[in-house]
Amino acid sequence: MSESGLGRVETQLVVLFDGDDELVLESGARLTHVEVAYETYGTLDADGANAVYVCHALTGDAHAAGHHGDPARRGWWDNLIGPGRPLDTDRFFVVCANVLGGCRGTTGPASPDPATGEPYGLRFPQLAVGDLVQVHRALVRRLGIGRLLGAIGGSLGGMQVLQWALDHPGELAGGLVVAASARLSPQNIAFSAVAREAIMRDPDFAGGDYYGNARRPDHGLALARMIGHITYLSEESMRARFGRRIQDAAAPRRGFEVDFEVESYLRYQGESFVERFDANTYLYLTRAMDYFDPFGDAVATARKLAAMDTRFLVLSFDSDWRFSTEHAREIVRALEGGRVAVSFRELSAPHGHDSFLMPVPEYHRTVAGFLERLAVEAAVAPLVAGGG
Amino acid sequence: MSESGLGRVETQLVVLFDGDDELVLESGARLTHVEVAYETYGTLDADGANAVYVCHALTGDAHAAGHHGDPARRGWWDNLIGPGRPLDTDRFFVVCANVLGGCRGTTGPASPDPATGEPYGLRFPQLAVGDLVQVHRALVRRLGIGRLLGAIGGSLGGMQVLQWALDHPGELAGGLVVAASARLSPQNIAFSAVAREAIMRDPDFAGGDYYGNARRPDHGLALARMIGHITYLSEESMRARFGRRIQDAAAPRRGFEVDFEVESYLRYQGESFVERFDANTYLYLTRAMDYFDPFGDAVATARKLAAMDTRFLVLSFDSDWRFSTEHAREIVRALEGGRVAVSFRELSAPHGHDSFLMPVPEYHRTVAGFLERLAVEAAVAPLVAGGG
Repeated sequence: MSESGLGRVETQLVVLFDGDDELVLESGARLTHVEVAYETYGTLDADGANAVYVCHALTGDAHAAGHHGDPARRGWWDNLIGPGRPLDTDRFFVVCANVLGGCRGTTGPASPDPATGEPYGLRFPQLAVGDLVQVHRALVRRLGIGRLLGAIGGSLGGMQVLQWALDHPGELAGGLVVAASARLSPQNIAFSAVAREAIMRDPDFAGGDYYGNARRPDHGLALARMIGHITYLSEESMRARFGRRIQDAAAPRRGFEVDFEVESYLRYQGESFVERFDANTYLYLTRAMDYFDPFGDAVATARKLAAMDTRFLVLSFDSDWRFSTEHAREIVRALEGGRVAVSFRELSAPHGHDSFLMPVPEYHRTVAGFLERLAVEAAVAPLVAGGG
Repeated sequence: MSESGLGRVETQLVVLFDGDDELVLESGARLTHVEVAYETYGTLDADGANAVYVCHALTGDAHAAGHHGDPARRGWWDNLIGPGRPLDTDRFFVVCANVLGGCRGTTGPASPDPATGEPYGLRFPQLAVGDLVQVHRALVRRLGIGRLLGAIGGSLGGMQVLQWALDHPGELAGGLVVAASARLSPQNIAFSAVAREAIMRDPDFAGGDYYGNARRPDHGLALARMIGHITYLSEESMRARFGRRIQDAAAPRRGFEVDFEVESYLRYQGESFVERFDANTYLYLTRAMDYFDPFGDAVATARKLAAMDTRFLVLSFDSDWRFSTEHAREIVRALEGGRVAVSFRELSAPHGHDSFLMPVPEYHRTVAGFLERLAVEAAVAPLVAGGG
């Protein structure tokens, strides 16, 4: 049964903060109503000790695995999560939630502000990665999970894992940080800045208050996605997938319309993205990434690392130029400087930053092996015949 | 006097094609009136054999050196051109013209179509790099220059030099191709495609007919420039210039406005660019680059290389990720495959693609040395005391 992955799954909604039980953000701002969309796969052990938390990246959502009715359309990390897969749902209880500020079920800038009943728009407070983590933690408590066996995430997901382990000792046995960064480079920030400019300069942006309007800033958001997408692929993978081939024609059209296959692909990425994503969420989450700098304060870092009891696996991909191996090394150096247990591996894969979403065999073996080790240490009995 | 460079210079205008003496483009389209803006520096020898032609890059113009009245505002390649500089105006007669399709004096999409009196807009014909070269050649003839001692260009400029030498044997003794490519990668095309989308999706683009309007597609053009600019700098140079410093403030503002210095820099680049550049020209010239593939036809290439008598210097910069050294090697391999004399050098400089505009000492020495050799071979007597 492991070949076909998980079957039908459902996204659930839960109110985690409400009224007086408000969420206080790092900025001091408060949210008086926070709903979270999440999915779970597998079964939580009686002792609540077999849970693995999945943190999604910038454009992900709670639907990480299985399907919602059409078995051909599966969650974004379906190749990693399921029976016999590295996040083996025959053994582990896997949780994934749409992040705070998101647009796929969890409270974000498109949600109604309880004070006015109108969508927040840009009145939604600025978010730090640590705020996203606070909401994950509230969900973990609500689900009756004790210490997490592990938390795993790629890109912004990995940043959440890192922040979680630093801020909340005792909560994560293992942290799997994939294709992530502890501090965006100016080039990283530059790409995000241009993407945000594309959104905010779109005349349909309307200062972020476009929710009731006939037109949304689709052009700007599509451009943002196209810019981002170039940074997710490697030059090598672009050569392999598109080369300089012309789309649907024997000879170049030599006009300004889409002609090369790579143009067609990018336009499709942009146009399909606007169907499922909210421009304001793009602004909030990219800005949280820009400011992310969990090791920026040396004194606080030393204190946090001294208290940390999370064992880390840090992975990078050799073709990833968005968060290159140098970003991973920076994380590893910081953790090792605090005598935290870290396994580090640069994996070879041609897909660029997107490699973390791909079924790269060595990658999957490494994740499975690390989780196995965590499970043994946590005395969760491994299945005798499991696959993986 | 060499320290201060050239003095005041003037841009000149000349009509090179008019009426029945029309310019026939590679596409078969015809232009019945072509004016060219150009500058010259130095003095043409009586035998017309000391001329060096400068081909500019995507956003360049005819004003390569000296100044137009304000000595503090100098041409884009002023560090390379002047008395005692590598393109030594005490010895060489240097010519630079705004390219066909440009927006800095030479006929382009903003020029009136003689058939209607209205600006061409997108009715301007598509251009190939070889069309740009045809106009350069007409200028060379008009100036009474025989065989050029050399033609030099960076990026799109280098592409023009390569095309010129391939198509017109006997006209260039030397070709200096800097930070260029013989064939854009899909990633290169992707960045240009997104830049064009930004322009063409701007509501003020008006299908290219914005010239008489109150608003031009400034937002789209600024975005295009910002995207391009990221690819012109290296990650290393961005770290050195900006790091993660905050602009004009002690603490981050943590909003969506410009906060990091790199954001401020990019926004300035975008906003100042629209003051001097035309969006339609950006479309035409980037598209000419996308389709450039002078070695694409093996039979034609073999024939052209067999007839070629140009000696080449091909230079790349180790931090250039727009046209990396691999692009230069591809040019070198193609030329060497045809037994063309090529010197190739990868230079070390931290400025990324923009290195070709910078006074990198080894780069300037290499250019000066190559021109010296060309001059000796062409029996132009070198000055005894020249500097450089």
